Amino acid sequence: MDTLTQARIKEIRSLSEKKYRQQTGLFVVEGEKMVEEAISSGFEPVELYRRDQIGEKAMSRISGMVTPSPVLAVLRQRSYEMPDISKGLFVALDGVRDPGNFGTIVRLCDWFGVDAIFASEDSVELYNPKVVQATMGAIFRKKVIYCDLEQLCARFAASSIPVYGTLLDGDDIYSQPLTANALIVMGNESNGISARVRSHVTSAIRIPSFTGGAPTAESLNVAIATAVTLSEFKRKFHKLW
Amino acid sequence: MDTLTQARIKEIRSLSEKKYRQQTGLFVVEGEKMVEEAISSGFEPVELYRRDQIGEKAMSRISGMVTPSPVLAVLRQRSYEMPDISKGLFVALDGVRDPGNFGTIVRLCDWFGVDAIFASEDSVELYNPKVVQATMGAIFRKKVIYCDLEQLCARFAASSIPVYGTLLDGDDIYSQPLTANALIVMGNESNGISARVRSHVTSAIRIPSFTGGAPTAESLNVAIATAVTLSEFKRKFHKLW
Repeated sequence: MDTLTQARIKEIRSLSEKKYRQQTGLFVVEGEKMVEEAISSGFEPVELYRRDQIGEKAMSRISGMVTPSPVLAVLRQRSYEMPDISKGLFVALDGVRDPGNFGTIVRLCDWFGVDAIFASEDSVELYNPKVVQATMGAIFRKKVIYCDLEQLCARFAASSIPVYGTLLDGDDIYSQPLTANALIVMGNESNGISARVRSHVTSAIRIPSFTGGAPTAESLNVAIATAVTLSEFKRKFHKLW
Repeated sequence: MDTLTQARIKEIRSLSEKKYRQQTGLFVVEGEKMVEEAISSGFEPVELYRRDQIGEKAMSRISGMVTPSPVLAVLRQRSYEMPDISKGLFVALDGVRDPGNFGTIVRLCDWFGVDAIFASEDSVELYNPKVVQATMGAIFRKKVIYCDLEQLCARFAASSIPVYGTLLDGDDIYSQPLTANALIVMGNESNGISARVRSHVTSAIRIPSFTGGAPTAESLNVAIATAVTLSEFKRKFHKLW
């Protein structure tokens, strides 16, 4: 730990790039709380650097933060097998590109007890540092699986599990009898659910706006829409009304 | 418009700073859609610059964006009088500091038909460019009033209107009989509702987590919590179950 060579510093910094994360299968986590949560969730640090051991200057060179955190860990990425989809609540992200949105959605899927999260290959990468930090630790507890969403939807259909999608012409979510077992598809920030995936949606839902005829906000942010949708699913499933 | 002097460029750029926005009472909006929404909501541009008129180079000098937008407007700030609080749904932000959170909340208050938004003086300023852009145009439709939240809560109490606050020891929001007329207080990103304001909360509510005993996400982001709360209020008020 006392010999943090130039080469090692460069290697750690390079993990801010997707290319190097994919080559090495590693990623970086910063902050006391995040590192603690990683360890308590069974992520064994490959390397662990503390400011009070390597010094402020070395820390600022390996940190991706404006203000270097007191602790930085290099962790090994996990890859998750396809879970049993016959029972449970699942979320699929179709082209969610913004790291803040993606990380926030992982965080709220943790809060609302979603069983696993799927993401299309054109979504932002899970181990992007901005995604990691936005999950606030949920990344260590939730399974996130990148896959072809059309094939995924077909698997849910084959198991007779509804595929919900938020669409402009969907039915009012508040008055829908939602199911306990479900896949909920959320779309891209600008374009919504892709045409390919949309054709597999079996239950189109919509969060109504309440502006009462006044000019309306044209849409909700995808993380906000996911939160409202999950809140409705969990409330109804738990008969919390 | 063809004479964009150095001095004028400097003045426009200075509006990225709170100090100059407050001195001049002006603020900047960028993007076709945002400027259109401003005009359609009755904000008369004090100045209007189009890339195809002043050129790419001049535009990049006045723009605060990484990629300069095709249009930039300088607008006059509005100040709103205290609305009639005897009827309606209101949100108060107690020290919400992050511009993205604040702007997102204004946007979703527009979606959910909130009548007016209050903010403590230590919240981020409404005309901060990041707040403005995050509202996605809702800033032109919603009243946002900065005021002392303790006095505000006292006014609601005097009108016998409940003051709701999301607190850790609050009652499960899903099983609460929420009221159509209400003030909902949302707190700071790290510290929640301040102690001073908390003492005025008459109805403590809580969004339960659904992790089923597993290690939990410790909290929801304030914008996400606001969305779930407003969804519940509107759903119940409109009898949408």
